[in-house]
Amino acid sequence: MKLATLQQGGRDGTLVVVSRDLGRCRAVPAIARTLLAAMDDWATVEPQLRQVYEALNSGAIEGEPFDQAACHSPLPRTWQWADGSAYLNHVELVRRARNAEVPETFYTDPLMYQGGSDGFIAPRAPIVAKEAWGIDMEAEVTVVTGDVPLGATPKEAAKAIRLVMLVNDVSLRHLIPAELAKGFGFFQSKPASAFSPVAVTPDELGDAWQDSKLHLPLVVHLNGELFGKPNAGVDMTFNFGQLIAHVAKTRTLCAGSIIGSGTVSNKQGNLWGSSIANGGVGYCCLAEVRTYETIEQGKPVTPFMRHGDVVRIEMFDAQGASIFGTIENQVDTHSLDK
Amino acid sequence: MKLATLQQGGRDGTLVVVSRDLGRCRAVPAIARTLLAAMDDWATVEPQLRQVYEALNSGAIEGEPFDQAACHSPLPRTWQWADGSAYLNHVELVRRARNAEVPETFYTDPLMYQGGSDGFIAPRAPIVAKEAWGIDMEAEVTVVTGDVPLGATPKEAAKAIRLVMLVNDVSLRHLIPAELAKGFGFFQSKPASAFSPVAVTPDELGDAWQDSKLHLPLVVHLNGELFGKPNAGVDMTFNFGQLIAHVAKTRTLCAGSIIGSGTVSNKQGNLWGSSIANGGVGYCCLAEVRTYETIEQGKPVTPFMRHGDVVRIEMFDAQGASIFGTIENQVDTHSLDK
Repeated sequence: MKLATLQQGGRDGTLVVVSRDLGRCRAVPAIARTLLAAMDDWATVEPQLRQVYEALNSGAIEGEPFDQAACHSPLPRTWQWADGSAYLNHVELVRRARNAEVPETFYTDPLMYQGGSDGFIAPRAPIVAKEAWGIDMEAEVTVVTGDVPLGATPKEAAKAIRLVMLVNDVSLRHLIPAELAKGFGFFQSKPASAFSPVAVTPDELGDAWQDSKLHLPLVVHLNGELFGKPNAGVDMTFNFGQLIAHVAKTRTLCAGSIIGSGTVSNKQGNLWGSSIANGGVGYCCLAEVRTYETIEQGKPVTPFMRHGDVVRIEMFDAQGASIFGTIENQVDTHSLDK
Repeated sequence: MKLATLQQGGRDGTLVVVSRDLGRCRAVPAIARTLLAAMDDWATVEPQLRQVYEALNSGAIEGEPFDQAACHSPLPRTWQWADGSAYLNHVELVRRARNAEVPETFYTDPLMYQGGSDGFIAPRAPIVAKEAWGIDMEAEVTVVTGDVPLGATPKEAAKAIRLVMLVNDVSLRHLIPAELAKGFGFFQSKPASAFSPVAVTPDELGDAWQDSKLHLPLVVHLNGELFGKPNAGVDMTFNFGQLIAHVAKTRTLCAGSIIGSGTVSNKQGNLWGSSIANGGVGYCCLAEVRTYETIEQGKPVTPFMRHGDVVRIEMFDAQGASIFGTIENQVDTHSLDK
């Protein structure tokens, strides 16, 4: 089943069921006005939404044309956004670039940060920030959970996965070093994220959803050029069940919580071989190519995003059809710089 | 005006207007069913709630008896919970205990961590955790904001303060060192917090609310004994306007966001003189007395909370009346230890 939220009807938007081909949609006020409300009562709501989904796919319901540009993030705001760093290749590169070792515990104890969930930007909204802050994208896979009890095991946690989405976890790289040096983690360096127009239930992903991982390439374009297509199912050290269980060790999770994978990153040889131009799978953030440059050339060369730059993030099924729709964020530094 | 949320009517509870003396209350479903919903539409809702408040205080409306034990946290869950560390005395003590200096920037750039807001515990709920995690309370003052735009100044931010509450920001001290060493800040070490039964508008605090600070002693009892009564208006390096502006530097804040002060802490001489028994104002967390012990005696002596221990947090006006009601959390380690 595919779901989206239109930017209308209030702060939490309007829930629509979307056809598999992303062509049509249908609001369902009699079932649930918003996706956030649907999460609260999923067991009751889900079967009703599925009926609409089937009818939309079969043509029994015509629905309206689905416009991704009219969408908000599926949850425009929610209770919890916790982001992992499950692709340790990315962490290894960052550490190698500053001659630091990756602690052994990083391979058994997930690295996660507590994000802010009070306002996400729309999938096609601009990223409003200053160039001096070092604007970067991070393409990731995320899940939305149901209620998760305190102390849930990874297996129990995996069963609480209700929806899958993509995200652009915007990062302000030049604010990170000073902020992390203070010891309390990310804060100003992690502004509002943008999620994919469409959230899908795991069954929708078929064989690509295995072991609580999404085994498909995550496709990133920067200013129209292919920049990355690493497989999100490869080199993911912790699956989503493990990430959720990490959060649940000392507290419960409320239905509607979003858990992220961290920047998707596949192990590759070196700067030359990792780039798309030379047959590599590329990168899901600018920081990663900059670490290769630092390791091999002494300093980063690729700039962070500038005013007008556009990042596009999407994922396609085996038949080449877009699963989640397209995140497309253009950087707007003018609103703040002036 | 005083507001509270009863543990009934759904996940977000039921909003009640509470009389100034905390004796009576009145549900207001025709105005707003929940405090969370009221925050979304504050400009419209607030004057209507105030009418009920005045009528309740004057006796024009009788209302029902108000039972603090029936309350949930005023916002049982919300969109944002960001906690500062504005009483630098606490930070200075912690650093001195490990022979580290406080960086100069700490006096100009607030230290804040991103908390989880998807599920707070009720004011009288148990703290369910393991003794091995090092269970501690942190008594703090917090504010609930309206919408705050990106880049708001401290003055603009101060105007967005809608409500004031107390909080017990439960901390798991033994999980902190390893977690902070990972570099991404607190996560498992900050389980669900408990807020005061009652949230009040700043005008309710009279002269005690000045310069976006609450100038009254925060009273903490541990197992029935007075443990701390530092003045929350003293030694607060950053006021709430500054803390909110810190959050808003790179992102907006949604109405209903909670911003915390950090553990209240007044500058005092030493271990002997700082304790209540010897005429000091005591402490708002066990970690603080433990830092004094470490500095003066080489190691901490006072234990963290054990099964059955009870912490009580409250604040009184000049006439000795409770402003926010009482937070009272008893530690329950048995549910998890077995």
